[in-house]
Amino acid sequence: MVMKRSRSTFLRLSLLAGMVAAGRAVSPAWGDSSGDPLPSWNPGLAKDSILAFVKRVTRADSPDFVLPADRVAVTDLDGTLWPEQPMPVELFYAIDRVRALAPQHPEWQTQQPFQAVLENDREALLASGKAGLVEIVAATHAGMTTDAFTHQVQNWIATARHPRTGMRFTEMVYQPMRELLDYLRTHRFKVHIVSGSEVGFTRSWSEPVLGIPPEQVIGSVVKTQFELQGATAVLVRQPELVFYDDKDGKPRAIEHFMGRRPIAAFGNSNGDVPMLQWTQSGEGARHQLLVHHTDGDREWAYDRQTLSGQLTTGLDTARANGWTVVDMQQDWRVIYAA
Amino acid sequence: MVMKRSRSTFLRLSLLAGMVAAGRAVSPAWGDSSGDPLPSWNPGLAKDSILAFVKRVTRADSPDFVLPADRVAVTDLDGTLWPEQPMPVELFYAIDRVRALAPQHPEWQTQQPFQAVLENDREALLASGKAGLVEIVAATHAGMTTDAFTHQVQNWIATARHPRTGMRFTEMVYQPMRELLDYLRTHRFKVHIVSGSEVGFTRSWSEPVLGIPPEQVIGSVVKTQFELQGATAVLVRQPELVFYDDKDGKPRAIEHFMGRRPIAAFGNSNGDVPMLQWTQSGEGARHQLLVHHTDGDREWAYDRQTLSGQLTTGLDTARANGWTVVDMQQDWRVIYAA
Repeated sequence: MVMKRSRSTFLRLSLLAGMVAAGRAVSPAWGDSSGDPLPSWNPGLAKDSILAFVKRVTRADSPDFVLPADRVAVTDLDGTLWPEQPMPVELFYAIDRVRALAPQHPEWQTQQPFQAVLENDREALLASGKAGLVEIVAATHAGMTTDAFTHQVQNWIATARHPRTGMRFTEMVYQPMRELLDYLRTHRFKVHIVSGSEVGFTRSWSEPVLGIPPEQVIGSVVKTQFELQGATAVLVRQPELVFYDDKDGKPRAIEHFMGRRPIAAFGNSNGDVPMLQWTQSGEGARHQLLVHHTDGDREWAYDRQTLSGQLTTGLDTARANGWTVVDMQQDWRVIYAA
Repeated sequence: MVMKRSRSTFLRLSLLAGMVAAGRAVSPAWGDSSGDPLPSWNPGLAKDSILAFVKRVTRADSPDFVLPADRVAVTDLDGTLWPEQPMPVELFYAIDRVRALAPQHPEWQTQQPFQAVLENDREALLASGKAGLVEIVAATHAGMTTDAFTHQVQNWIATARHPRTGMRFTEMVYQPMRELLDYLRTHRFKVHIVSGSEVGFTRSWSEPVLGIPPEQVIGSVVKTQFELQGATAVLVRQPELVFYDDKDGKPRAIEHFMGRRPIAAFGNSNGDVPMLQWTQSGEGARHQLLVHHTDGDREWAYDRQTLSGQLTTGLDTARANGWTVVDMQQDWRVIYAA
């Protein structure tokens, strides 16, 4: 019988204390002094649509009132809650791991997609496509227990910085989206992340950084193997992706992980469209929102032409279905809290 | 845009109202008038171990205090919360569906395992093993949307009865286990079902019958396909089991669905052993419990020799690891509430 005295919760809290302090993490208060719950949102259609929807489903006298248990919102992560340029955050982690592991893998010097990583050739890396990325994730996210992986990711994200902004990734959460999540939670919504990122990666930091606990994170899944090390049971992560949470995988994963259809969904790319369609096809009032990256000065400007987070059919579908499209340049007073 | 006026929550509530009334469902109050939270448990080691564990992890002055967010318990379903003799409840559903669908499948008359079902040959059915059961589940749990399946299961379980007791299945929830779940929830535990049953089947009734919402149900998973019917998105269930939640699959599924290690786990068969080992291998205070079916008069008596819910290595592992083994005959004052 295992009877270690140290406590995982306290460990986790102390490990992440620096991040919470640095990254502003979950806002302790709600809204600004004027009572505006979304002070970083400029007046406009996007802000109005959010406020109107929340009133519609939470006021007891509304014909569209929704019981708290059914107030489920889902949100994409990369490009929706923080930037995904030049590539998703998890890929920065994977690249740092490839570099750290390279001395044990001399064959990577001449083997794609690893060579591209080691030579800092971002074009070649992104050109390796989904297959290349899956290979990198497999090589860097496996071969250790689930607990060891969690600690490795926590140590990385506590210090890693974005190469262009020099900010910690955890400081780059979009302040308007943070306010939106807080606003929903104040109205007894449960917010779930639904991301292509591997679920163990995101769960390692989602609670201190975004206020979203592990059980509310849905994502891609690597295979695990159950092993007994003496009397101690561990799960060892295997170099095999068994589920890729993108496009039609997103609604399928929502059904599979939680079995409840969301009433609100936020995304930013083609990969989020089926999730928003699934959300909208439920009964009663619904809200769908796409973040459109229009601000090349304060963030990045891209939609139809990009290797990361492409938005083409999404814009057309949004127009046809009456979804809210956020124009980052127009609608967001600030991008980051700092 | 879909704008139907009817509301899924109200539909669900009214559909299941009969079950709640008939099956006692979630107990509104807690314990009996003497203040005993587990009145259906006879005094003894099993009851003591539960009471001691809950005190140990919930009292603020305890060195083993656990924050409410980490108070996660997992429980098997068939054989742990209600009977699994002569077979798991889901199989009764599948058999009723095979019979209902048989006119559309004349080939089933001479094709196993369907022939066994139609001829009421339980021995031949169980002899078809996991492969046969998977085939029956595939034939009866697929070819319809997730919503249609949920309604079909709800309609079935509202009236289906066990062939030996004549009771509704929902009336056969073990009263001592119902008290245990209530006792844990009163102490801010979240209880998750972890069952070999297909997750959509269990989620269709778990909340009104056991007070466990869909997102706290973990189980086997059938493939789904995303389809647009006009502008309406649906998920269509496919005749393919993509995950079987038993044995080492149980801890893997817990990690995959929720990413948090439980501190208490309840089961009754060999298939639950890895889940209990995984639970025990975490840090801090833990509780593992196996229900041993020893009461042939009031329920069923079986362990090493049975086609459903075999318990062999589990008893040995329980002894070696200090798990609580419930002797149904000795430890439970009543089996069912009725």
